[in-house]
Amino acid sequence: MNKLLIVGTVAFDAIETPFGKTNKILGGAATYIGLSASQFDIKSAIVSVVGEDFPEEYLDLLRNKNINLEGTEIVKGGKTFFWSGKYHNDLNSRDTLDTQLNVLADFQPVVPQDFKSPDIVMLGNLHPLVQLSVLEQLERPKLVVLDTMNFWMDNTWDDLMKVIAKVDALTINDEEARQLTDEYSLVKAARKIAEMGPKYVVIKKGEHGALLFHNEQIFFAPALPLEEVFDPTGAGDTFAGGFTGYLAHTGDISFRNMKNAVIYGSNLASFCVEKFGTERMQELTKEEVHQRLEEFKSLTQFQIKLT
Amino acid sequence: MNKLLIVGTVAFDAIETPFGKTNKILGGAATYIGLSASQFDIKSAIVSVVGEDFPEEYLDLLRNKNINLEGTEIVKGGKTFFWSGKYHNDLNSRDTLDTQLNVLADFQPVVPQDFKSPDIVMLGNLHPLVQLSVLEQLERPKLVVLDTMNFWMDNTWDDLMKVIAKVDALTINDEEARQLTDEYSLVKAARKIAEMGPKYVVIKKGEHGALLFHNEQIFFAPALPLEEVFDPTGAGDTFAGGFTGYLAHTGDISFRNMKNAVIYGSNLASFCVEKFGTERMQELTKEEVHQRLEEFKSLTQFQIKLT
Repeated sequence: MNKLLIVGTVAFDAIETPFGKTNKILGGAATYIGLSASQFDIKSAIVSVVGEDFPEEYLDLLRNKNINLEGTEIVKGGKTFFWSGKYHNDLNSRDTLDTQLNVLADFQPVVPQDFKSPDIVMLGNLHPLVQLSVLEQLERPKLVVLDTMNFWMDNTWDDLMKVIAKVDALTINDEEARQLTDEYSLVKAARKIAEMGPKYVVIKKGEHGALLFHNEQIFFAPALPLEEVFDPTGAGDTFAGGFTGYLAHTGDISFRNMKNAVIYGSNLASFCVEKFGTERMQELTKEEVHQRLEEFKSLTQFQIKLT
Repeated sequence: MNKLLIVGTVAFDAIETPFGKTNKILGGAATYIGLSASQFDIKSAIVSVVGEDFPEEYLDLLRNKNINLEGTEIVKGGKTFFWSGKYHNDLNSRDTLDTQLNVLADFQPVVPQDFKSPDIVMLGNLHPLVQLSVLEQLERPKLVVLDTMNFWMDNTWDDLMKVIAKVDALTINDEEARQLTDEYSLVKAARKIAEMGPKYVVIKKGEHGALLFHNEQIFFAPALPLEEVFDPTGAGDTFAGGFTGYLAHTGDISFRNMKNAVIYGSNLASFCVEKFGTERMQELTKEEVHQRLEEFKSLTQFQIKLT
């Protein structure tokens, strides 16, 4: 089985949406990526850090999905990273209510021996220097995918440029792609990002789907039209987990197969938003994912005879 | 050849975008619909009205595209409908600067004898009672498609409900679908619209593509990602012209073929926005449309083997 190395936060989230409110629940980019990628027959590991307050039950939940946690440090006496946010009525925007870095502030990632030459690496949203430090511990993988956000553009631009230059693919949302490149057109933005390093660029547009760019080729995966989005938290990370999980599983990083990978990313993200936090992803079965793949096919596939 | 009857405005537009500004140029919903549908081997006619100020050269332009103008009345001494608008920087929203109804105020549509039993009818954006009056002059066509806008919801709700109840399909943009149904979710909005009458609902999302709904089936046609949108004026009408033109051409109104029709709608709309007003549509060739169809295929088609 191929290996997927995941780097990112494992955290507590407190979420408020128009449909309700949670206390501290399981969250974090690496958590969502790992749960999503666990739908594929691969070996995966999370490199992250939590505090002593992090429930053993959450760790077991991840271990039971066959995720290796040797690289997830538990800091004695430390407190776990905490994020709290409130979504607006249209669920397309949110306010951050609280961010407590806690053990993340001094995080020094250590890649377990067994994952020092992974097939695919997914660098989830984190400080660019932490992402870089992980790359430096690895033999060159087949594909390195980076996720980031506006916070790092605002505060650590030079470090972000260093890590972007070293990765093969970038996943980023539309507004962040515009901020990163100062281009409104996503076609132009993707071209500028490619000049920074990543040969593959995935621009996530939330309910409007995702675009994959490589050289002058473009592929588009729609989001599944849903009756109701319950909680968008983690949808982007779940997308990244589906994207890299499928690539690790198939071992094929051709553009043709990356099309399939973004469809799987969109497929898995469409489940994530159906319930609060990771709830839906915890219980998700392969049969449900396969069935939804059929929905994606009938949503997008057509047969035109030229006349 | 099958017949497509088009109803809507033939007008003067004055447009301002971040890229430039036009004087009075050829515009109007029926004009865009007609030019777009002229890409197919069909017989089409426009029922509309213009003033004596309308240049013979514009009428010839439409006639040269094999559009029958017997039902386009020229009012002696009258002035043509005029609309002027200015787009904001993102091109996703616009302000109307001026609207002069002129000859449109007293328009009594008359369907030419040869088009009283058309295969497909495209009721472009106009007063709902004018749209109704056209329907009353016809033998039941195979398919009637309606387009409308927020103005008629605000000002002529009851009349709009009467015409909506009589049509088979509605094309409408996302914000208008939400206004019409008071539902944010487009899946729910489409279901409510279907209860008002139209068995087929097309929700146009501009740069984010278009959704086709029928019973519980959904199809999605993306917009082609473009380097630059030059002028969005008429894109929705061009979409409607491609949609109905293709359905008239093939004579097949199955859901399966409607998928192809929305792809053609999106295909043609992607050309419309490349230049000011109708400029791009006037010169557009079948070869260009076929070539772009290949781009739509590589943009959306994928092959996943279940594993």
